[in-house]
Amino acid sequence: MEAKTPSESITIITDLVLPSETNPIGNMFGGELLARMDRAASISARRHSRRIVVTASVNHVAFNKMIPLGSVVTVEAKVSRAFKSSMEVYMDVWIEDRESGLRTKANEGIYTFVAVNEMGAPMPVPPLLPETDLEKERFEAALRRKQLSLVLAGKMNPTDATELKALFTK
Amino acid sequence: MEAKTPSESITIITDLVLPSETNPIGNMFGGELLARMDRAASISARRHSRRIVVTASVNHVAFNKMIPLGSVVTVEAKVSRAFKSSMEVYMDVWIEDRESGLRTKANEGIYTFVAVNEMGAPMPVPPLLPETDLEKERFEAALRRKQLSLVLAGKMNPTDATELKALFTK
Amino acid sequence: MEAKTPSESITIITDLVLPSETNPIGNMFGGELLARMDRAASISARRHSRRIVVTASVNHVAFNKMIPLGSVVTVEAKVSRAFKSSMEVYMDVWIEDRESGLRTKANEGIYTFVAVNEMGAPMPVPPLLPETDLEKERFEAALRRKQLSLVLAGKMNPTDATELKALFTK
Amino acid sequence: MEAKTPSESITIITDLVLPSETNPIGNMFGGELLARMDRAASISARRHSRRIVVTASVNHVAFNKMIPLGSVVTVEAKVSRAFKSSMEVYMDVWIEDRESGLRTKANEGIYTFVAVNEMGAPMPVPPLLPETDLEKERFEAALRRKQLSLVLAGKMNPTDATELKALFTK
Amino acid sequence: MEAKTPSESITIITDLVLPSETNPIGNMFGGELLARMDRAASISARRHSRRIVVTASVNHVAFNKMIPLGSVVTVEAKVSRAFKSSMEVYMDVWIEDRESGLRTKANEGIYTFVAVNEMGAPMPVPPLLPETDLEKERFEAALRRKQLSLVLAGKMNPTDATELKALFTK
Amino acid sequence: MEAKTPSESITIITDLVLPSETNPIGNMFGGELLARMDRAASISARRHSRRIVVTASVNHVAFNKMIPLGSVVTVEAKVSRAFKSSMEVYMDVWIEDRESGLRTKANEGIYTFVAVNEMGAPMPVPPLLPETDLEKERFEAALRRKQLSLVLAGKMNPTDATELKALFTK
Repeated sequence: MEAKTPSESITIITDLVLPSETNPIGNMFGGELLARMDRAASISARRHSRRIVVTASVNHVAFNKMIPLGSVVTVEAKVSRAFKSSMEVYMDVWIEDRESGLRTKANEGIYTFVAVNEMGAPMPVPPLLPETDLEKERFEAALRRKQLSLVLAGKMNPTDATELKALFTK
Repeated sequence: MEAKTPSESITIITDLVLPSETNPIGNMFGGELLARMDRAASISARRHSRRIVVTASVNHVAFNKMIPLGSVVTVEAKVSRAFKSSMEVYMDVWIEDRESGLRTKANEGIYTFVAVNEMGAPMPVPPLLPETDLEKERFEAALRRKQLSLVLAGKMNPTDATELKALFTK
Repeated sequence: MEAKTPSESITIITDLVLPSETNPIGNMFGGELLARMDRAASISARRHSRRIVVTASVNHVAFNKMIPLGSVVTVEAKVSRAFKSSMEVYMDVWIEDRESGLRTKANEGIYTFVAVNEMGAPMPVPPLLPETDLEKERFEAALRRKQLSLVLAGKMNPTDATELKALFTK
Repeated sequence: MEAKTPSESITIITDLVLPSETNPIGNMFGGELLARMDRAASISARRHSRRIVVTASVNHVAFNKMIPLGSVVTVEAKVSRAFKSSMEVYMDVWIEDRESGLRTKANEGIYTFVAVNEMGAPMPVPPLLPETDLEKERFEAALRRKQLSLVLAGKMNPTDATELKALFTK
Repeated sequence: MEAKTPSESITIITDLVLPSETNPIGNMFGGELLARMDRAASISARRHSRRIVVTASVNHVAFNKMIPLGSVVTVEAKVSRAFKSSMEVYMDVWIEDRESGLRTKANEGIYTFVAVNEMGAPMPVPPLLPETDLEKERFEAALRRKQLSLVLAGKMNPTDATELKALFTK
Repeated sequence: MEAKTPSESITIITDLVLPSETNPIGNMFGGELLARMDRAASISARRHSRRIVVTASVNHVAFNKMIPLGSVVTVEAKVSRAFKSSMEVYMDVWIEDRESGLRTKANEGIYTFVAVNEMGAPMPVPPLLPETDLEKERFEAALRRKQLSLVLAGKMNPTDATELKALFTK
C-alpha cells in the first residue's frame, strides 16, 4: 500500500458548546469533548485507511483549559502514525474568543483506532509519511506511546521497550 | 481531612446500548462509552471530595471487547488515589449476556479529576485509604501514572520520575 | 423454573441531572425521570427473566421531592413480584447532597413488564422469592395492585377483586 | 376563578418514532413515550392554570399496543379534573397506518400536575367544567383515582375513601 | 387519484423550548426549529400521499420573532399544493403567552417533499383541493415558488417562468 | 469597519450520519442536516461579525442527493455578502465515499443571520470583500435574493426590486 501524508487525513469539527453540554460551573463537560474527539479521530482514521475503524484505546487527553458555554470549539485530527492495522490519531483542540477572534489551544488528545472488515477482523493500513517538523516529532513519539501501552497492558516486558527505556536511562 | 476508602466513592451506572449509540458494524461507539465513563467517574470523585469536580485528564482507556447493540453495560468507578487536589478514578466496564446472565469484563479506564470551588480554583481533598489487594495495587500504580503524565506533559524530567524509572531499569 | 430473589435483579443507575433535563424553575423534568426509571426497571426485569422485556404499564409514580439541577440521582430497581409472564418492578429513587453526602428518598415508582420472544409473544418467567421484610411487604401488595390494574382496565369485576375488596371493607 | 372546559386545554403532539427510540424488537421504548406524554400533559395543565406546573404523579399508563419504528404517534392531552392546586390530565395515544390512514388507539395515560409560583409553592387553579359524555365520565372517575392515590400513599384511611369504597361494596 | 383537502393533512406539534435548545441570549436556536418544522411537514406530506416522503427543499423560512426559553411552540403544517410527485407544505408557527394565553404568530415556513417508494423512486401523489381563502392564496403562490426554485437551480430559463415574470412586469 | 474576505469566516463541520439521524429508507433526515447547517452558518456569521448572531431566515436549501447512514458529511460555510447588520451565509455540503475517498456535492444552502447585542438589538457588521470568481458570483446574486426575500415578505414592491426585475425582463 502506498504511504499517505497526515494532511490527507486531516479532519475538522467546529461546533458550539450548548447549554446541555456544560457542568455546574458553566464549562464544557469532559465527556462531551471526549465524544466529539472520538468522532473527529475516527473520521481521520477512516480517511487514512478507507476502511471501517473502531476505537482501540484513548492514550492520553489533557484538559488544560476550561471551555466556557457558548465557545466555538475546533477539533483538528490527523493520523500521527500507522502500524500494521492500527493508527494513532493526534488531535489539537482550539477555542476562539468571539470578540477578538484569537484562537487558543485548549487541549490535546491521542486515540488509537484499528481498521476492520465487516466481520470485525483487523485489516492492513497504508504507512504514514510525516512531512512537517511537528508531524515528524509526533511520529517518533508514537512508537514510545505504543510500547508504553503494551507495557501498561502487561503485553510487553518493560526491559524490552527499548525506545521507552532510553527515555529514562539516558 | 479524614481519609476515605474506595468503597465510599463507588458509583455504578448500568444502562442499555441504544441504536443511536452504535457504529456501522453494530457495536457501541467509543465516544459514547467515554462520555458515560466521564459521568460515572466524576460522580465518584465528587463523592470522595464532596466538591465540584472537573475532568483533568484521561490517562488511559483500552477497548478490549466490542460491545454489541442491546447490551447491558455496567460502569463501576472508584477513586484509586487522592493527591493534593486531584483524584485518580479507576473504572471497570462489564457487559452481561442476556440469556446466561454471565458478566464479562469489556474494558478499563483511568481518569483524573480536580476538586474546585465555585470560582474554579483547586481545593484540597481527603486522602485515600485502599483496603482490598486490588485497591492497594491500583493505589501504588497511580503514582507511576502521575509521574508519566507529568513527563508526557513536559512538566517533569524523565530522570526525576523515580517510581517510573525503576520500572524500566530494574 | 427456579425461583429467584429480588437481589438477583437489582439494577442501579446513578447519574447527574443536566441542564437540558430541567424545567423553568430549575428542577428535573418528570418525563426525564420516568424515562430513566423505565430503563432501570427494564434491565431489572430482563435480569430476572433473561428474556427481551417490554413495558406493560406504569402502575404508580409519585414525585414527592423536587430534584434540582446538578443533583446526583440514584434509581434502584428490583423485581417485586413475578406472575405468569409479567413482572412488577419496584423502584426507589434517591438524591444525595454534595456537601454532606446525605441520601434522601425522592420518590418511588412501580412499573410492570412482560417477557416476550423475538416475535413479541409472552413467555413464562421464574417465580420471585422475597427475602427481606420490605420485599415481602411489596410482594403482598403487588397482588392488590394487579387486581386494581385489571379493575381499572375493565377486565375484572370490582367485586371479584377479593384482595383489594378486603382493603375497603375490613 | 372562572371554570374552564377541557377543550380549552387540549394539547396535541404528533411525532415520528425514530430509530434511537426503539427497543431490540423494533418497537418504541416505553420510557420515550412516557417522556412525550409528560410534555404534552404539562402543556395542557399549564394552559388550564396559566401557571408553571410540575409533575406530581403518574397515576396509570397502560401500554396496550406495541408502536413500531416509523409510526406517526399522536398524544392528545386534556385536563380531566381540577382540584385546589392540582390537575388530573387524561391522555389518549393514537397511531396511524401510513397506507390506509386509519387511526388506532395505542394506549391511555393519566398524570397529575400541581400549579406552582416561581418559589415552587402551590397556587390555586380554575375549576374544570366537563362538556362531553366522555369528559364527564373521566371527571367522575378522577375523584376515585385521587382517593386511591391518597390511600396508596398512606395519607387516607381506606374506609374514609367513600367514593372508592362504593366501587367494591355495591 | 382522488383530490384531498389541506385539512386532511393538517399536523400539529406543540412542544416546549428546553434549555438545551437555546442560544447565548436565551432564545430558541434556528436550527432546532428548522428540525421540528421538518418533522411536522414530513408527517403532513405523508398523510397527503400515504407514502414514504423525503425533504426535497426548504423554500423559505423567516424568523420574525425570537422564541424565548420555556415557550410553548405550536407548528401547524398543511399541504399547500401537490404536483406530480412533490408536495409543497406550508407551516405557521405560533407561540403563546403563559399568563394571558394569547397566541402570536412567530414565523412561517415552506418546505417541499417528494413521495418515494422503498427504493427511493418518485411516486405520484393525489392533487390538492384548497378550500379556504388562505388555502387558495397559498395554492396559487405555490406555482410561482416552484418556478422560482427551478430558476434558482438553473433548471428553468427566467423568461419561461411566466407566472413569476408577471409579478415583476405588471 | 474594515472589510473582511469570505475565507476569514470559513467554518467546517465534518461529522458522521448516525442511526438516530436517518429516515425509514436509511437516509439522513432533512431536519438533522438543516440543524447542522444552522450551527455551521451561525459560527461563520459570528466569525465575520465578532458578535452574537441569530438566524433571520433560511433563503433556500435544495436536497439534491440522498445521504446514506454512515456517510461522512462536510458542511462548509462562508459569509457571501454583508448588509447593514445582516449577513448572508452560503454553504456547500459534501459527502465522501469511504472506499474511493471521492467527494461529491450533496446540496447547497443559503441562510441569513443578524448580528445583535446582548439585548437583541441589531448591530452593524463589516462589509464583505469577495475574492474568487465563485465568491464574486455569490456576492452579486445575494442582492437579488435579498430583494426576493423582501418581496415575498410583502416589504418591497416587486416593481421596485430592480436587480430582480432585470432577471425576468431582459
